[in-house]
Amino acid sequence: MPKIPVEISARHIHLSQKDLDALFGKGFKLKKIKDLSQPGEFASSQTVELIGPKSSYKKVRVIGPVRKNTQVEITATDCRVLGINAPVRLSGNVKGSAQATIKGPKARIKLKQGVIIAQRHLHLSAEEAKKLKVRNNQKVSVRIKGERSITFHEVVVRAGRQYKKACHLDTDEGNSAGMKTCEYGELVK
Amino acid sequence: MPKIPVEISARHIHLSQKDLDALFGKGFKLKKIKDLSQPGEFASSQTVELIGPKSSYKKVRVIGPVRKNTQVEITATDCRVLGINAPVRLSGNVKGSAQATIKGPKARIKLKQGVIIAQRHLHLSAEEAKKLKVRNNQKVSVRIKGERSITFHEVVVRAGRQYKKACHLDTDEGNSAGMKTCEYGELVK
Repeated sequence: MPKIPVEISARHIHLSQKDLDALFGKGFKLKKIKDLSQPGEFASSQTVELIGPKSSYKKVRVIGPVRKNTQVEITATDCRVLGINAPVRLSGNVKGSAQATIKGPKARIKLKQGVIIAQRHLHLSAEEAKKLKVRNNQKVSVRIKGERSITFHEVVVRAGRQYKKACHLDTDEGNSAGMKTCEYGELVK
Repeated sequence: MPKIPVEISARHIHLSQKDLDALFGKGFKLKKIKDLSQPGEFASSQTVELIGPKSSYKKVRVIGPVRKNTQVEITATDCRVLGINAPVRLSGNVKGSAQATIKGPKARIKLKQGVIIAQRHLHLSAEEAKKLKVRNNQKVSVRIKGERSITFHEVVVRAGRQYKKACHLDTDEGNSAGMKTCEYGELVK
């Protein structure tokens, strides 16, 4: 079975320039603190408060660079804590997704949509996809070994030149599989 | 594939009579509010505060009847929130497990052990185990279908006359599999 690096994404937010301006001030630029596995993506030093009807998380990391649409990625556990009913969606597919309030140093804004539970997915460069004989949007399975071994099905392949091999899970999924940090899984087609 | 009812256990606590006495008063009896799937087990109207080094959960349900040893069952997500490093264990196997402080109406007690992440398991009566051709302590897999389909491996069979067919997952696991409440899974041997 081909080995796949598996990464756990903590809750985070991507901001549009418009929302970044509103939350942090006109023309604000995110400060990079760490590159992430996908080329160009980075953790910034900025955080915002994510507020739901039941409670809030004070420090949700802003991931750069800015995107076309603001998008908040949380777990089903977070949804219960916040009182938000977010759908399971692929990144970018935010139409009609859940609402929340975001608070930054300069303002508090109400998102009319954008809160999702990220659907698990497997990033691959075009070359890596070819080598593994899988296509963009194909669903595959990834098995994690160990005392809480799990096979994740319905893992959507996101293949393209902008990507690099990594399966992305959320913290509920990583915790369920007993993962501490980045580990390796096996691709099961 | 044989169908198996799958239940999600929220965080909860089982108390010894000694700890129940300390927390709620000498000779206190738990008040049943709901029978659970396993014969004799019930949710009580009592709750306690579960306190870790980083934070606490105010209302953790006490499950009856009293047991030989006090045992707290939480998720890996809860561990992170509380600042507790609990091991993955089968119910009853609490030796050397994690510590926490428990607060009831009458007292606050320090547990020297007893906090675990429950290892997923499949309760079966002796008859049901025979019919499914699995043995006590055998590890099986259980597949949940749907948009977040998962196959859980390392599911420990707990067969015995005191049990009734039900696979028990924690909320991290149920959330990862997109489960809302009790659903059905498929037994994969």
